[in-house]
Amino acid sequence: MITGKNQIGNTLSATGTITFTTYNPELDRENDVVFTEATQEEIEQALSLATDAFKEFRNVSGKKKAEFLNAIADEILALDDTLVKTYCSETGLPEGRAKGERGRTVGQLRSFANLVEEGSWVEATIDKAQPNREPMPKADIRKMNIPLGPVVVFGASNFPLAYSTAGGDTAAALAAGCPVIVKSHPMHAGTGELVASAIIKAAKETGMPNGVFSNLNSSGIEVGQQLVANSKVKAVGFTGSIKGGRALLDLAAKREEPIPVFAEMGSINPVVLLPKALENRAADIAKTYAGSITLGTGQFCTNPGLLLGIKSKGLTDFVEQLSTEIIKIEPSCMLHPNIKKGYEANKSKIVNEDKVEIKANFTSDVHNNYAQQAVVTVEGKTFLENPTLHLEVFGPFSMVVECDNETELETVISNLEGQLTGTIISDDNELSSYNILVDALQNRVGRIIFNGVPTGVEVCESMVHGGPYPASTDSRFTAVGINSINRWVRPFSYQSWPNHLLPKELQNENPLDIFRSIDGERTKDKI
Amino acid sequence: MITGKNQIGNTLSATGTITFTTYNPELDRENDVVFTEATQEEIEQALSLATDAFKEFRNVSGKKKAEFLNAIADEILALDDTLVKTYCSETGLPEGRAKGERGRTVGQLRSFANLVEEGSWVEATIDKAQPNREPMPKADIRKMNIPLGPVVVFGASNFPLAYSTAGGDTAAALAAGCPVIVKSHPMHAGTGELVASAIIKAAKETGMPNGVFSNLNSSGIEVGQQLVANSKVKAVGFTGSIKGGRALLDLAAKREEPIPVFAEMGSINPVVLLPKALENRAADIAKTYAGSITLGTGQFCTNPGLLLGIKSKGLTDFVEQLSTEIIKIEPSCMLHPNIKKGYEANKSKIVNEDKVEIKANFTSDVHNNYAQQAVVTVEGKTFLENPTLHLEVFGPFSMVVECDNETELETVISNLEGQLTGTIISDDNELSSYNILVDALQNRVGRIIFNGVPTGVEVCESMVHGGPYPASTDSRFTAVGINSINRWVRPFSYQSWPNHLLPKELQNENPLDIFRSIDGERTKDKI
Repeated sequence: MITGKNQIGNTLSATGTITFTTYNPELDRENDVVFTEATQEEIEQALSLATDAFKEFRNVSGKKKAEFLNAIADEILALDDTLVKTYCSETGLPEGRAKGERGRTVGQLRSFANLVEEGSWVEATIDKAQPNREPMPKADIRKMNIPLGPVVVFGASNFPLAYSTAGGDTAAALAAGCPVIVKSHPMHAGTGELVASAIIKAAKETGMPNGVFSNLNSSGIEVGQQLVANSKVKAVGFTGSIKGGRALLDLAAKREEPIPVFAEMGSINPVVLLPKALENRAADIAKTYAGSITLGTGQFCTNPGLLLGIKSKGLTDFVEQLSTEIIKIEPSCMLHPNIKKGYEANKSKIVNEDKVEIKANFTSDVHNNYAQQAVVTVEGKTFLENPTLHLEVFGPFSMVVECDNETELETVISNLEGQLTGTIISDDNELSSYNILVDALQNRVGRIIFNGVPTGVEVCESMVHGGPYPASTDSRFTAVGINSINRWVRPFSYQSWPNHLLPKELQNENPLDIFRSIDGERTKDKI
Repeated sequence: MITGKNQIGNTLSATGTITFTTYNPELDRENDVVFTEATQEEIEQALSLATDAFKEFRNVSGKKKAEFLNAIADEILALDDTLVKTYCSETGLPEGRAKGERGRTVGQLRSFANLVEEGSWVEATIDKAQPNREPMPKADIRKMNIPLGPVVVFGASNFPLAYSTAGGDTAAALAAGCPVIVKSHPMHAGTGELVASAIIKAAKETGMPNGVFSNLNSSGIEVGQQLVANSKVKAVGFTGSIKGGRALLDLAAKREEPIPVFAEMGSINPVVLLPKALENRAADIAKTYAGSITLGTGQFCTNPGLLLGIKSKGLTDFVEQLSTEIIKIEPSCMLHPNIKKGYEANKSKIVNEDKVEIKANFTSDVHNNYAQQAVVTVEGKTFLENPTLHLEVFGPFSMVVECDNETELETVISNLEGQLTGTIISDDNELSSYNILVDALQNRVGRIIFNGVPTGVEVCESMVHGGPYPASTDSRFTAVGINSINRWVRPFSYQSWPNHLLPKELQNENPLDIFRSIDGERTKDKI
């Protein structure tokens, strides 16, 4: 069923000579299917099709786009066990996770379907003419959001479904009216091809133009670079490493026509442990965090990699408890031998730095590609002086920073790179005494959590998944939730345009019955 | 009254040695005041103050920010004749224009004051907790827009008030809660200093923190470069040339922490003249456009520099009439000898290209610094082949492109660089036959106008002043209207946060009585 070919619009194609396979980390062997990298000609074909498709797709109604998105969700579910098994064989993740992530992916697609079917998301805004205004008459002006053009999406290694082929970026871009070209992640190219086939089936069923979607294989960086540099591409979505994201951002910035790149990159997700909370319930917090740090083998972008506290008996107890608890947890498989290699390399790098103390280290033998969790401590001063310690260790690892006092803790927070999340663990009445810490943390993150864990990103309108650089390349947008559609649209004004030639969203009669702002008031009224 | 000094927060300072003066183009001589360029130390001081001020200013209530913005408007009006005279002496623009632009500036400040006083602009979004949801409980998540941090604003040569010191970028940034550092435009540094003094007075009156605003002088590019490269700066607003805007964009992209640059740059504002309209009323259209091309000595970013039509008797008549009408118009003063020099140089460059025909050329003697208007024609094929002809000639100049047929016209439109505006001149029933042209034009512009002129940018919510690159560096935002505040804010989520410690905008009781989205429904309800 999986061909190893590229999906160039509606056609499967494999004219290239560079091939690769995916890897089953649980069985520690290569999977069977051979994938062929997209050639320069295939890239050009996909982009030409996308450019042509855009001319039609940008004018497709919200109702029709909703049919398309719902059909994608249906077709993904119809892949059933084949998809789940392929997913597991390419990631080492358990079946439950595969099904959970599929549910999330399907849920995202349906929520965008609802959004565009309802239609008010275009933010239709109308200022009526005032022909008799003095000293100058006012023209009739009407604004709405329109799609940017073809979008290139780079899937994530750690979310083969929810942040990849038909994940949040793709769903949002298609909902906006932008054709999508996915640069498939080489670690789960089979999963990617299956999902791509579901999208193409859905596109055909619902009459979408050829080229509305393509899926390109590659094991290296060249295909991605060629895509981002191509003048036919109008925006980029990326989930992955800081290095990868920054390289694409730089490439896009150097184009003759620079384009927006929304990259969601690394984060170590600082957790601030306040004194009273530690005094009262160090053991509970430790248990919760042992779980959060090792969840999904620590392979979440919201993994709590940095725990910050003020030296106290409570903090010492917490570190001890956390170390005890985390060692009890059964090691699990990482996504790929390279991910495991990276984890070990980064862990060693940190552990070998001066004044880093290892508090927990799972040293018993594990299966190949299984991660051995670890916890280390450093002093606040050491952390501030040594930028190597700010490195993201992608895996079940966390560092506790022990600060001398609140001032040092604030300095540590203020000197952090931008993060997706920050968490405060606090007793009820304690938080209001630490406004300075909260303000400092808010300034460095996109989401702040009270007495919880950063892992587990709820897909809802109020979620911000993003944050100051390098958590993302543009903190003004979120990668999760319906507002993530705003990454792929631009406002557009019609001045004095004939009513019957306006898009339906802006016509006097409000035929789509959407909410609009008319002379500053939000209403479904006709004009 | 004008000191020539830099406004570093609340302090006037001139420790540097590089000085310059402004120029009165009408009298053709330098003005008296000597301005001192900001030194590196002064730049650092302004940025340190801004960074400190941000800690307080970001939490200032909408009501207090509204008082500040309204006080700026009042203080600008209180400058009265001094401001108008300084404006005129530094620009060669007439008093009526100065007063009109002052009205626009004050209007913008008050409209942002209204926006933040009302408060719903923060887009408060609440998803209530569902503790019993299966399989996982849902946390309470609440989102709102928060300011990015200190913003650097580069004023425009052609709008000393509305797009400069207290112009749209500054008003929007202050409304958002971002301190502003203005890199004053050297051509109207006196006007800039007066307005800066009004802002500082208003800041003191309304109790804003020192550093919420600074105004830095410079005649070269170094001060601006240092500002954009400085890690304390979190965003940039710019209005000016493509060369200048792109240089800042590139500089910001190279930073360790890249930051958003919203630059509104050049535009030649294509006008598509459809056949029936020309057949029926070539003379009327010509008269209207002779006015629009020469309005404000052609020094508007929405100046119609490119007129596109299909060869016909109507088009020939139009060119003839336009040439006749435009020559009748009394030449007027340009902003500065350098602007006049640039106009003449670019005009010559175009006129000297192969196959460019001069149709109108005001050759009678004019005062120094007055612009001589001109109209040229080229064939569609020539325009397509020669990118030099796409150059913006900043001044009272326009080029008519005569296409062989509709297909060539569509090709010309599709090959245009991004533009602020596109206009269609059409007879009522003609437009629906030219959907392809409209679609092509829409793809290249931010605002499309039916049977009007692009000059005259209404300040209202539905206005888009921006467009595909290089009209702006990010077409996803507008520089005009209340939505321009979105350039300077980012969404921020609170998860499970204690109600009494949330910002008022997100508290259960909705104490600010703003519109919020609660579980997907827009309401002013409490929770």
